[in-house]
Order: sequence, then structure tokens, then C-alpha cells
Amino acid sequence: MASLKCNAALITSSSVRSCAPAPSLGQPETLCPQSRSFGSFSGLRLASKASAAVASAASGYGKAWARSERALRIAATATVETVKKTDTALIEKSINTIRFLAIDAVEKANSGHPGLPMGCAPIGHILYDEVMRYNPKNPYWYNRDRFVLSAGHGCMLQYALLHLAGYDSVKEEDLKQFRQWKSRTPGHPENFETPGIEVTTGPLGQGIANAVGIALAEKHLAARYNKPDATIVDHYTYVIVGDGCNMEGVSNEAASLAGHWGLGNLIAFYDDNHISIDGDTEIAFTESVDARFEALGWHTIWVKNGNTDYDAIRAAIEEAKAVKDKPTMIKITTTIGYGSPNKANSYSVHGSALGAKEVEATRQNLGWPYEPFFVPEDVKSHWSSHVKIGATLESEWNSKLAAYEKKYPAEAAEFKKLISGELPEGWEKALPVYTPDKPAEATRNLSQAVLNSLVKVLPGLLGGSADLASSNMTLLKLFGDFQKNTPAERNLRFGVREHGMGAIANGIALYGGGLIPYVATFFVFTDYMRGAIRISALSEAGVIYVMTHDSIGLGEDGPTHQPIEHLASFRAMPNILTLRPADGTETSGAYKVAVVNRKRPSILALSRQKLPHLPGTSIEGVEKGGYIISDDSSNNKPDLILLGTGSELEIAAKAAEVVRKEGKSVRVVSFVCWELFEEQTPEYKESVLPSSVTARVSVEAGSTLGWEKYVGAKGKAVGIDSFGASAPASILYKEFGFTVENVVAKAKELLSA
Amino acid sequence: MASLKCNAALITSSSVRSCAPAPSLGQPETLCPQSRSFGSFSGLRLASKASAAVASAASGYGKAWARSERALRIAATATVETVKKTDTALIEKSINTIRFLAIDAVEKANSGHPGLPMGCAPIGHILYDEVMRYNPKNPYWYNRDRFVLSAGHGCMLQYALLHLAGYDSVKEEDLKQFRQWKSRTPGHPENFETPGIEVTTGPLGQGIANAVGIALAEKHLAARYNKPDATIVDHYTYVIVGDGCNMEGVSNEAASLAGHWGLGNLIAFYDDNHISIDGDTEIAFTESVDARFEALGWHTIWVKNGNTDYDAIRAAIEEAKAVKDKPTMIKITTTIGYGSPNKANSYSVHGSALGAKEVEATRQNLGWPYEPFFVPEDVKSHWSSHVKIGATLESEWNSKLAAYEKKYPAEAAEFKKLISGELPEGWEKALPVYTPDKPAEATRNLSQAVLNSLVKVLPGLLGGSADLASSNMTLLKLFGDFQKNTPAERNLRFGVREHGMGAIANGIALYGGGLIPYVATFFVFTDYMRGAIRISALSEAGVIYVMTHDSIGLGEDGPTHQPIEHLASFRAMPNILTLRPADGTETSGAYKVAVVNRKRPSILALSRQKLPHLPGTSIEGVEKGGYIISDDSSNNKPDLILLGTGSELEIAAKAAEVVRKEGKSVRVVSFVCWELFEEQTPEYKESVLPSSVTARVSVEAGSTLGWEKYVGAKGKAVGIDSFGASAPASILYKEFGFTVENVVAKAKELLSA
Repeated sequence: MASLKCNAALITSSSVRSCAPAPSLGQPETLCPQSRSFGSFSGLRLASKASAAVASAASGYGKAWARSERALRIAATATVETVKKTDTALIEKSINTIRFLAIDAVEKANSGHPGLPMGCAPIGHILYDEVMRYNPKNPYWYNRDRFVLSAGHGCMLQYALLHLAGYDSVKEEDLKQFRQWKSRTPGHPENFETPGIEVTTGPLGQGIANAVGIALAEKHLAARYNKPDATIVDHYTYVIVGDGCNMEGVSNEAASLAGHWGLGNLIAFYDDNHISIDGDTEIAFTESVDARFEALGWHTIWVKNGNTDYDAIRAAIEEAKAVKDKPTMIKITTTIGYGSPNKANSYSVHGSALGAKEVEATRQNLGWPYEPFFVPEDVKSHWSSHVKIGATLESEWNSKLAAYEKKYPAEAAEFKKLISGELPEGWEKALPVYTPDKPAEATRNLSQAVLNSLVKVLPGLLGGSADLASSNMTLLKLFGDFQKNTPAERNLRFGVREHGMGAIANGIALYGGGLIPYVATFFVFTDYMRGAIRISALSEAGVIYVMTHDSIGLGEDGPTHQPIEHLASFRAMPNILTLRPADGTETSGAYKVAVVNRKRPSILALSRQKLPHLPGTSIEGVEKGGYIISDDSSNNKPDLILLGTGSELEIAAKAAEVVRKEGKSVRVVSFVCWELFEEQTPEYKESVLPSSVTARVSVEAGSTLGWEKYVGAKGKAVGIDSFGASAPASILYKEFGFTVENVVAKAKELLSA
Repeated sequence: MASLKCNAALITSSSVRSCAPAPSLGQPETLCPQSRSFGSFSGLRLASKASAAVASAASGYGKAWARSERALRIAATATVETVKKTDTALIEKSINTIRFLAIDAVEKANSGHPGLPMGCAPIGHILYDEVMRYNPKNPYWYNRDRFVLSAGHGCMLQYALLHLAGYDSVKEEDLKQFRQWKSRTPGHPENFETPGIEVTTGPLGQGIANAVGIALAEKHLAARYNKPDATIVDHYTYVIVGDGCNMEGVSNEAASLAGHWGLGNLIAFYDDNHISIDGDTEIAFTESVDARFEALGWHTIWVKNGNTDYDAIRAAIEEAKAVKDKPTMIKITTTIGYGSPNKANSYSVHGSALGAKEVEATRQNLGWPYEPFFVPEDVKSHWSSHVKIGATLESEWNSKLAAYEKKYPAEAAEFKKLISGELPEGWEKALPVYTPDKPAEATRNLSQAVLNSLVKVLPGLLGGSADLASSNMTLLKLFGDFQKNTPAERNLRFGVREHGMGAIANGIALYGGGLIPYVATFFVFTDYMRGAIRISALSEAGVIYVMTHDSIGLGEDGPTHQPIEHLASFRAMPNILTLRPADGTETSGAYKVAVVNRKRPSILALSRQKLPHLPGTSIEGVEKGGYIISDDSSNNKPDLILLGTGSELEIAAKAAEVVRKEGKSVRVVSFVCWELFEEQTPEYKESVLPSSVTARVSVEAGSTLGWEKYVGAKGKAVGIDSFGASAPASILYKEFGFTVENVVAKAKELLSA
């Protein structure tokens, strides 16, 4: 335990080496008369097994102790003075404080999930009080340990911990506003609302995958910037996952990659409480989770009594930290709703307030005489040290960084710029520009050119594909693969794991290291990763989604692979940009938008087929979302407006030529990004789409849903509202009406009406 | 091997018990001089390990043999006459026929995936020629063994097998039309195009989950209809999965459930070829797949030489069949592109034609002197027996069914009606009806009333939730849980596995047993299962998606749980119905539509919050998609039209009352299903939304995308185009403008314009 203490909170004086294990902590003292009733409720069914677990943990602990040199080394670097021994009674009291803050907040809101915080309070206490290195007054201190609550419904656990640790984002008032309008304590953890929360969780399985992304980011930056004599990137990522997370496929995908990548800096706690919403996990979840994680290449540990065997938890963490070449999954068997005499160990405590009567019974049971939201003075006083400790930790790190800067000025400058999140000045000059005489090219290939150009000027750019790098054209030629033993490289190999890929990218984007992740697959397979993409949008993670094969234009692979509704589906999603560039210049423009938007993800829908470089396209135009690429009218009143996106802008341009030859004035509008167009001034919008011109035809190889807004009731949308088919692309374009002839015919119907 | 033969194809004479293992098959004979070059290409790297594998397999085989009593018993029931020994040379020739049909079809199309068919041809041959029971002239014979190619890109394997086996759907002409417009051999397997294909695969991981659904359906119907003295439901489900499938989270979800449910009738072949599109699987897939499946409760077997050790494959299948309480995963190590001297065992053979030169080299290498698409006479003659065998199998089953019918007429009648796919007459009379005086109720609760009413009249109805049964309100009160030992029950417990749930439901729907699966989760989590929902729509699987908590009206759980873009995203998807009923009557109407549409899935978007029963709603109205629920105008010319769906129809109705009091005539339209409205006649549409009335306001708690089509350029859409927030529902409705006051204000703006 000592080294754990030394790592973090309880250090106040004396040298680290004077720390000694305190085996008595394994047997919690009796707090009060009421606690004798423990044996009477199901929440403590496991307590009787505790002594065996303690014995087992103790032997493991010895090993962990021997292996904890690194922890000691890290601790030894801390210029702290004394180690204050925290007695078990105070630890119990702190843990119960966490429990009751959760109980009280859920009760006041009459909404929320008390079960997890009550069961995981010991893990939470040990992590935030003894293990983790953070600075409550600067939640964004770069080298902090990261914590992710993958079982996000249990967010009151984290709010209670942030509150105790001294984060300004969660004051007592905030706890009292749990789940209320505009509060900083929403119903699930939201990084964009509450400093101290790293990522947005709630949809199960996302958080563990985010944590894999965070751990990847740390491993990558450590490999790039640490020096043999100077370590500036050096922290752990902790995550609590529940049964639900472990059932979700996305967590298996991410865990498989974490094992493959050997992310020894990642430590997951599996809150093994045997209860999910529908009841006992026996009804749907009887696999061996430990064995599965071992198969995935993880180190696993089982803490059999996660309710009261604090030393076993500590020993497990020590052991996990000592395993450097594998992530660790610590299965902690806990009792959901621990302490509630009548509801513990049942689904009824998962997602509802306990109710006044049961709250009172729980207070009796756990010996908690205090009023709601009360933090006992000794607990408060104990936790108050974290503000100082945090300041010390950050200050020490700043000193290390300063020393690093002296020895390695260039690297330090790059690193500091990177973690500031600012883009290098003039980076956009690296964007390729094209003229119409250049050979036709698929936008997926043009995208590759942009990526390979940008990676030279954007030290934060890294990414990869879900096993389609050679189809998505996403390989960075200057770099090798990020792998277990080559973590400084920048090509990520996700395997066929789209959902995991997206959620990992969210972790990378929100890590705070200035990294700009791009991820790629066929556009249709956004269906597999939509859960993660939505979290990108919601949590302001500026992930770049490189989505190729963006229409029936992919040809023979057929309707399973041909997107139809996907453009519309992302246009309907808030806070995401859907860009469908038409040529080389627009592809550069799309990347300019995507890179600039660090708090808004971008979908780049790219073609498999070759497209010409069109006259009139521009990067500035792309930034406006919709703009005129050609027009032979005067006074902003063309006879006809043709709108197109991506691969169909060429068709619109050619159709315009045909109609112009017949004496009509025609405007061609590239409508590359609806969302950006909507953000323009009414004047600009009117200048592009004058309301007086009702003869409008759009052409886009996708669902027509939504186009009425731009073509109007009298206009026509050429699109595809059925599934595609398996055939060569040229045949499909003809059969589904994506031809110059068809667009001209539709235009003439309008012009003659 | 003998019992395998007896099970299926090669049985032509003599009694079953005279079959004897033919150990010589383990060592393929030399076919021709060219085959001596085997050692010279990477495709046979594994061949040198074959002898050890054979020895190992042989010992396993003995055990399997001893355990294969059931197989023998089944075989013994067949009234077939003789066993024709097929010599190894002919088997080799048949396997090479499969390989070259694939090579030639891909070459002619200059598009496709030859690698898997070349590597899996031995598995394919053994399954379709020796193991599986099917009737080529009736691909829909109920009691056939099912085969699913989860690695759907390798579809030429299946097309070649269907062709050889005598299915009318895949003639030589069809093979020559591989991947062409309107062919029956599209780029990935499509059940709706090609009889003999069970489900639509291609998006990886779907097929294995479909197979779990198929195996579940068989286990369920076997438990319901088989009698101790009469077995009428009795077949296996075979599936080939690749590395890609095994990386996808959806496959882990489904496999975990298959293990939990103990689906002993499910046998998966893992084509372990170490190659995915991006190269060696070492770059992203180093987990132990076998160990993972064991952790999931599967029996696992490893066939080390899947290229030439046919006896090991046979023995593995025998062993798998003998394991009755667990699904089996047979890992078969194969060489992708087996036989290609220069491309085997590399990603280059995965997804591209070999090219004329390499085709020729492969012909040389495998000793194949024939022209493209040629099937040697002896191979053709050998396979021709399957037409007769299939007819015999079906006829025998018909006799069994007739005998069953005599003993169990009621059960037989129900069973026959069920597998006919017809709905019982008058079933719709069970739909609850409501009047406005009934107490307000959430549509999720009204949905539960419908489900529990319908299950009494629809013997095919079964389903469940992804661990949200008590929130989605989907429990069937008359039934228990479908579990390993209670498979006749109808409540499915999917755990928190939305994607697997959807894909399993597709398998149930397409099984051919007349089952009507419904599955449930929160509407927002359709994001997790969209890959499966899209396949429902594409493959005409009439799954009913019960999606509750359908808007910000769910309240405190916050934006991670609040759908915004989801309605729009499904309205854009082809061949799916998006229904958002407003009250009890409309909920009944929505179910009527969903049940009737057996070839089109339905999304039922249901409220968490209580809603009143509105005057004017009707089941017939729901069937038209959009209809008038109240109107005080004359001559089809109201001053104002208010459109609403689901929980906001009430707001529209109340706003109408307010506006009417101010002397304007107002029509209220329930727009419960856009897709159905679009299918009505122009006259009907004009009668509901007369083009002359431009003052229109829609109100729906979701993205406004697409509403312009119905409110027009001059109308207004009250919706939400940002993410929601965590707060009580009533606050959210007020803050986001879903109030009578706001709708009235918007209407007045239009009326005064």
C-alpha cells in the first residue's frame, strides 16, 4: 500500500522509503453499532469470503511490492515531505461519504443510478485518494492520470470524487443540481460540461474504447518525446467498466486492440456485480470475462471482495502497474447498491432513487447520521490535501519540462505547441492545389495526397483504417505502423473494427495531446460505428472520418456496400460536418475545414471512381459550404440552378453546358457541405440561391431526403431512394439516372413548365 | 467419414452400418504431373505439417466416431440404398472445379474475391457434397440444413456449390454474369436475389450473428413442435467466418449469446488464413480466437491443414455434431488463394481477379486443363445425385410430417401454417382499441399491451430487449425466457448487445419458420445496431424494432440518450418503415403495419412519457402514413395545417384549438409514417395536404431535416437540430420550444404574413 500512497494523495512528509504496508487495512474496523447489521443484507453476501481473498491478495501483494520499483522510482522523484497514515476508519468514512453523496444527489433529483457508486466507492476512493496523480485546480494539466467511467450511468461516483478532490467544477451546489437544466452534473458524464471529466460516456462500451485511445495517445507521445534522461509523458489511464460495457461488441474490439498494442499503461476495473437492468447477469451473460480478456492479450486479476478488501484492490493496482507490456483487467466483485439493506444486489438499485425509506435504512445500516450532502470534517480535511499535492505534481512536471526544454529545445517547442492544441502557423499552405488540366483522380486518392502532405506540417496528425488502408488510401508514406514495439509511428492498424476505431479516435482526440486522429472505412460502414461518431459530435472530438466508396459509384460490390441514406443521416446529426468534395481542390478544402474544426468532427465522403478537376472549385468555396462554380447569368437571376455534390458535380457542370447551348442561363452550385452553408449570412445564401429562381435541380448519388429545402417545391432532386445493385459503376450510374441526359431532361421539364 | 457420407450425398446403396472410415482420404493422391509443383508455392506451406495434423485428427476422429451415434441414427432413418465410394481423385477434382469456377467468374467480371473460394473449397465441397441435407429443387424446403457465408465477399464459393448441387438459381449463365446488372450472382450473397442463399452477407460479422438467429429459431421450434416420438424440426446451421468477421464486435456479441444459449446445432468454420485486406493479420489481430470462443462457452476444434486434410475436416464436423450442448467453432487453417503459385497466402488474392497470367499459372499448378467455367463430366455426374437425394430427403420429411399430423393434428396445423409464413386469419382483431376517455399512457406501455395481446394470436411472435425489457416494456407475460434449457419460451434476453440482437433477429426472420421477431432498445441505440437494421431493410427481413425513449422527452438521462437525428436517418433508409404513433390507437395501427409487412422491417418510435388518447386517431389512418385527425375547414382549404407525430401530435392538436378560437380554420394531420404516406395516390395526398394551403407548421421532437417537403418553403418546422440536455422532460420541452405556445406563435407568424 505504501508505494501507492507515495504515488499520490497521502504523502505529506518523510521519505518514501519509510512507507510500510499496513496489513491491518485488510480488515475494516467496526465503525459503529449499526454496522453489525452488515450480515443481514444481501449487499454483504460476499463479505464472508473476504478472509480467503485477503490471504490470497496478501501473497499477491508481496509480489506486486517486489515488482513495484517503477512506482517507487516515480514516487521518489516527488519532493514531498511526510507520509500521513490514514486510518481505516477514516477510509471507511470517506468511502461512505462517496456513497451518500451519490445517494443524496439521486434522491434529490429523483432520477439517476445509485447502485454503481455505492458498489464502486472503494475503487473510487483508492483511485482518487491514493493512486491517481492529478491537479484539481487545473483539470487539464497535461501529465495527469486519466480516469474514464465507462459505466457512465454511475456518474455520481465521479462527481462525488471530483467534489471531494477539490475540483471547482463540482461544488456542493452542483451536486444538488444533479440532472437539472444547465447544471454541471448531467445525467451521464460530459467532458464539455464538467472539467475533470475526460470523455463523454453513458452509451455502454464507449468509455473503455476511449480509454484505449487515451492510452494509445500516451504511449505514442511518450515514444516520440521522452528521452532516456528526461521523461515528460508518463501517466496511467484508469477505467471502470461494468457488465454492460463488457457485453458490447465495441469493448471487445477495443480490448483486442489494446492487447495487440500492449498498452501496459491501461488499467481497467471490471465492476463485476452480477446485476444488469434486466436482473441477474445469469440470464444473458455467462461467458468467462476473465478468460476472454486473457485471450485478448490482457493481464487479468480477480479481487474477490471489492466491497471491503481495500488491500486487495491496492495490491491489484500495484500488480497491474508492474505489468508493462500488457493492459490489465482487474475484475472486482462488488455488490451493487452496497449498504442498502433491501435493495443491494438487485436491479432495483441500478437506475432509480432508493426512496426516502430505503435511504434512511441505508443510513442506519452504514452508520451515517449526517444530513444529505454533508461531508464530515475529517473527510473534508483529509481530501483537502489534494489541492496542494496536485499543485506540487504539476509544478514538478513543469520543472521537468523546463529541464527537458534546455536539453531538447526543438522537441520541447513542438511538444508544447502540440499540447496547446494550436495548429502550426501556415500549415494550410501544405494543402495541394489543382488546375483543371490535371489528370482525373478519385477523391480517395486526392485525400491520400492531402494526408501525406499535411503530415509533414501537422505533428499531431495520425490515423488509419479498419483494414481498408489500401482501399481508403490512408497510409502515411513517411511513417511506419504504430505497433507494440514501434509506438512512435503514425499509421494505426485497426483491423476490421469500425466501432472500436471510432471510439478509440474519440479518446485520442480528447486526450489533450493535440493529436488529430483520422479514421477510415467504406462510407456504408459508418453504420457500424455510428455510436462512436455521434459521441464525437456530442463530445466535441474533432475526429476526421475519411469515408471512401461513397455511393453506388463503387460498383460491383453491390448494395451491401453502397451508401444511400448515409449523407442524409449525417446531415441530420448535430455538430458534425458532412463534406463531399468534387475534385482535388475541394478535397483540400474539405481537409482545411476538418483540420480547423477541432471541436467538431468531419465526415469526408470520397469517391472510389476518378473525377475531373473542375473549373471554378475553390478552397474558400468549400469553407462556405455551398458556392457558385459557374454561371452565365446576369443580375443574380439565372434561368436555372443546378446543384451537385462530390462525384455528381461533374454531371451538373456538364448538364449546364448542354442547357446553356440551348440559350438558357445556368448557374452551377457546389453544395459540398450543407452545414457550413447554413452558417452563412442570409445575404450570402440569397446570393447563391436567389429565392426568385425556382427552376432548380440537384444531383447527388444518395437519398433525396432534405434536398427539398434547397431545390424548393418546384424543383427536382435527382437522387436514389432505393438500394443500389451489383454491377459496374458506369452501368449503375446510367440505370439509376445519374447522367447528363437525365439531369438535362429534368431541367427542361422545369424550364418549360 | 462414413457416417458423414451416410448423412448426405454419397449414399446410393447398402446399409448405413456397412460404411467404414476411409483413412486413405487423408493423403490426397497425385492428380497429374503438374501437381508435383505443389511444393513450390506459398499456398502449400502448410502441407508439410499435414501428417502431424492427420495423426492428431485421426485420434480425435476415433472419439468423434464413438460419439456420432446421433448422426448414425439420423442417417439410418434414410431409406437410401447404397453407399458409393467416391475416390480421392474425384474429390480433388470437385474441389478444383469449385476453385476454378470462382477464378473464372471473378476473372470474367474482372471484379471479386477469388482468395476465399480457393482456400475454402475443401470445406465447401465436404459440406455440400457430404454433410448437408438440402433439396436443390426446393431451396425453401423447411427442414434443410442452413448454410451462411459470413465472409460474404467469398460468394463465388457458394455460387459454385449451388451450381454443382443443381440449384436452378445458379446456372452456368449465371456464373458468367457474376457481378453484372440484374444477375442472380451479385457481388455479395443476397437472399432476395438467389434462392439457396439464406441471408444477405458482406458487411462482416453479420452472417455469424444471422446464423445464431437461425440456430435459435431451429432450437425454439424443435422445442415447441417435436415430440418424443416424432421429430419434424431437426437440422444444423453451418457458417463460414473469416478473420474479418471475428474482429467485428457484432460477432463477439452473437457468439457470446450462442454460447449462453448452448446452441449445439450451430457449427462455425473459422477460415484461419492469416490474411486480411491490409496484409498479414499479425498487424492487427493477434488475440487467441480459439481461447476467446472457449471463454464464450463454445466447443473449439483446430484443423491444422484445411487445404488437403479432408479427413480432419470431416472428423471435426463429426465431433462438432456430437457436442449437443454447445456451439462449435472449427478453426481451419487454410491458405487464401490456394493453388495460385504467386499470389496464394497474400492479400493480393483477397479481392481482385488473379489476372490472365496468374490464372494460367494456377491452371498449370493445379493441373487444370479445362476451359473457363467447365465442369468435368465425372464431377458433374457425381454432383447430379444431389437432385435425387434432395427430393428423397424432402419426401421422407413430408412422410414424417404426415405421420406427425395424424398423431398431433392441432400442433401440425399450427406448425404448417407457421412455416407457410401466412398470418392467422383475423389476427388483427386482437389489436387493442382505445377511446379518448381512457387514461393517458406512454406508447411504450401501450406497445407492451399490444405485444401481450398479439402473442395470443400470433404463434410466430417472439422477441426481447438488449437488457432494457423493463424500460422498453417488451416482456411477454404469458411466457418465460428462452434459455438453454427452456428453448420453447418466447422472451429473448439479449444482454447489452444491440448489434448482435439486430443481426440475430434477421436470422430469425429469414429462417423460414414463420417467426416474427421483435427487438428492443432505446431509440438512440439504433446507432449501435444500424449495420443490422440496414440488412433487415435490404434483405427483406420483417423485424419489428421496438424503440422506446424516442426523444428528449426521456428527460434526465441527457443527450447521450436522447435521439435527435434518428427519425430522419431511418426515413432516408430504403425499404424500412419509420412509425411514430401518438397514442393507443396509433400504437395498435403501427403494430398492424409492422406485422403485415413481413418483407419490410419497421421502426416503432415510442415515448417514455405519458400521452393522451387523441380524438380522431385511427388504425386505418396509420396505414395511410399521414391523415387528418381534426379539421374545421370547408372545401379542403383550411387556413392552417398543423402536422405532428408521436408525442407532439398532442401539442399540434392543442395548438389547433387555440388558433381556432381566434377564428381560423385549422387542420391537424398525424404524420405517423412518411414512407406509407408517400405510397398513397396523388389524390389522397392532395386531400390531406392541399397544395393551395401554404401555412403549415410541423412539430416533432427531432431533426427538422426533410420536413420542408411537407411544410413547404413558406411553412415552419418546429424541431430540434442540436443535441438535447439532461433535465426533467417538462423543462426540456419548454426550453427547446415544444409547447403549444410556441407552435401557436409560429402559426400566427404564418397566418399574418
